[in-house]
Amino acid sequence: MSASLTYDTARRVLEAGIARAEEIGQPMNIAVVDDGGHLLAFGRMDGAIKASIDISTRKAVTSVLMALPTADLTPLVQPGAELYGLEQTAGGMVTFGGGVPLVRDGEIVGAVGVSAGSVEQDVTVATAAAAALEG
Amino acid sequence: MSASLTYDTARRVLEAGIARAEEIGQPMNIAVVDDGGHLLAFGRMDGAIKASIDISTRKAVTSVLMALPTADLTPLVQPGAELYGLEQTAGGMVTFGGGVPLVRDGEIVGAVGVSAGSVEQDVTVATAAAAALEG
Amino acid sequence: MSASLTYDTARRVLEAGIARAEEIGQPMNIAVVDDGGHLLAFGRMDGAIKASIDISTRKAVTSVLMALPTADLTPLVQPGAELYGLEQTAGGMVTFGGGVPLVRDGEIVGAVGVSAGSVEQDVTVATAAAAALEG
Amino acid sequence: MSASLTYDTARRVLEAGIARAEEIGQPMNIAVVDDGGHLLAFGRMDGAIKASIDISTRKAVTSVLMALPTADLTPLVQPGAELYGLEQTAGGMVTFGGGVPLVRDGEIVGAVGVSAGSVEQDVTVATAAAAALEG
Repeated sequence: MSASLTYDTARRVLEAGIARAEEIGQPMNIAVVDDGGHLLAFGRMDGAIKASIDISTRKAVTSVLMALPTADLTPLVQPGAELYGLEQTAGGMVTFGGGVPLVRDGEIVGAVGVSAGSVEQDVTVATAAAAALEG
Repeated sequence: MSASLTYDTARRVLEAGIARAEEIGQPMNIAVVDDGGHLLAFGRMDGAIKASIDISTRKAVTSVLMALPTADLTPLVQPGAELYGLEQTAGGMVTFGGGVPLVRDGEIVGAVGVSAGSVEQDVTVATAAAAALEG
Repeated sequence: MSASLTYDTARRVLEAGIARAEEIGQPMNIAVVDDGGHLLAFGRMDGAIKASIDISTRKAVTSVLMALPTADLTPLVQPGAELYGLEQTAGGMVTFGGGVPLVRDGEIVGAVGVSAGSVEQDVTVATAAAAALEG
Repeated sequence: MSASLTYDTARRVLEAGIARAEEIGQPMNIAVVDDGGHLLAFGRMDGAIKASIDISTRKAVTSVLMALPTADLTPLVQPGAELYGLEQTAGGMVTFGGGVPLVRDGEIVGAVGVSAGSVEQDVTVATAAAAALEG
């Protein structure tokens, strides 16, 4: 079985994110990228801030490039911590929560990035979106 | 009536583009932006080339910034023509066909950009997508 | 009534900012952008530093993209805070005070960014400029 | 006497450009820069295309950097001509008409850049704006 993410699957991930964002009443920007970090599907819900177009996409890309949820990077990039300054590399990464890898059969096949709410809300929506991969 | 483009409308434009792309058998990247050039909805169909993620988005942005279909720019930027070098400005514009403004009540409310086929195919799909605004 | 900001209104905002800057004796750079973050009017008063051409404009753009005064971002981007690293995203944002949204009928129609004084002075002038929208 | 351009003079240049643009019925973006190419005053008239925010500013900057009207560069950058590719240098220059140096006592003290109309219209307005320096 191929590990590559189809557009249909990416759209399903996006729509699962939108459904969760509607449940918590927070409009979001949601980006789904493939395992090369290239955009597959994107949606900006009405009322979601425009800065988060870039932030959501970078969160997804960062998750692919680092093979981690972006929330895991937050402690590592603080002053004095091991990867201080990491966010300046690789074209600009985002090191706060809201980017989550999409995993199938133990392999990262892409990532979803969510932005426009609090970091906790972003993570909630990204996690729900990523779960749709198994759906 | 507000002139601003909703996500539902942007998604309808995107889906009309996808439907037309399927009819002509050419997978596409399709980007829909608002009247400030900010991304609202994006889809990359299976098999569409990755360079066109950026190209489709820039076509849409160019259409908003220039208030014209990108195909109209092609003759103007040739060597010896009036706007030779235009594509270097405004953050990098695309001056071949496939970007089409979205017009409502005579006002540009956004644009759609399509890329991955021939320019003729891109224009065909972008035109079909833009027509969905009236639907 | 259209929500879009006219040049006359943008110039009125700019001039209100200049008047306040003269009152406090601090030459400023003042930028007014529309709701897509695109520049409408700009002035650099005699003696205002040149770095602030970019800073004032980015403050205005940041206010539009984040839908907030830039002063509200300052605590959020400190080491250990939720959005540490935010300023790296969305093309480069400014996260200290001096950018203020322009609001009409509860809707953000643009923003003003002011820079060249202390942050407190910048906020004072930006606030006076933004108040002119109601004039 | 200092050669430096004041904000009052820059605004006078800008307003002379706006007056001429109104006479010919073509809304414009007009940028005035100092002899270092740093923005002093800017206005975008209602209906002027957004791409020309950047183009007008680059025209003014190019005029300062090259010490020439941008229209003089057009023949020089064509394929086979001496400066082919010039527009890629110095951060991106514009090599079609609409940028005009501001000259006082034989010295270039800044430049004005105009964009949004035809190149002929842009040059007409930029020339009128530049003439206001003598007013």
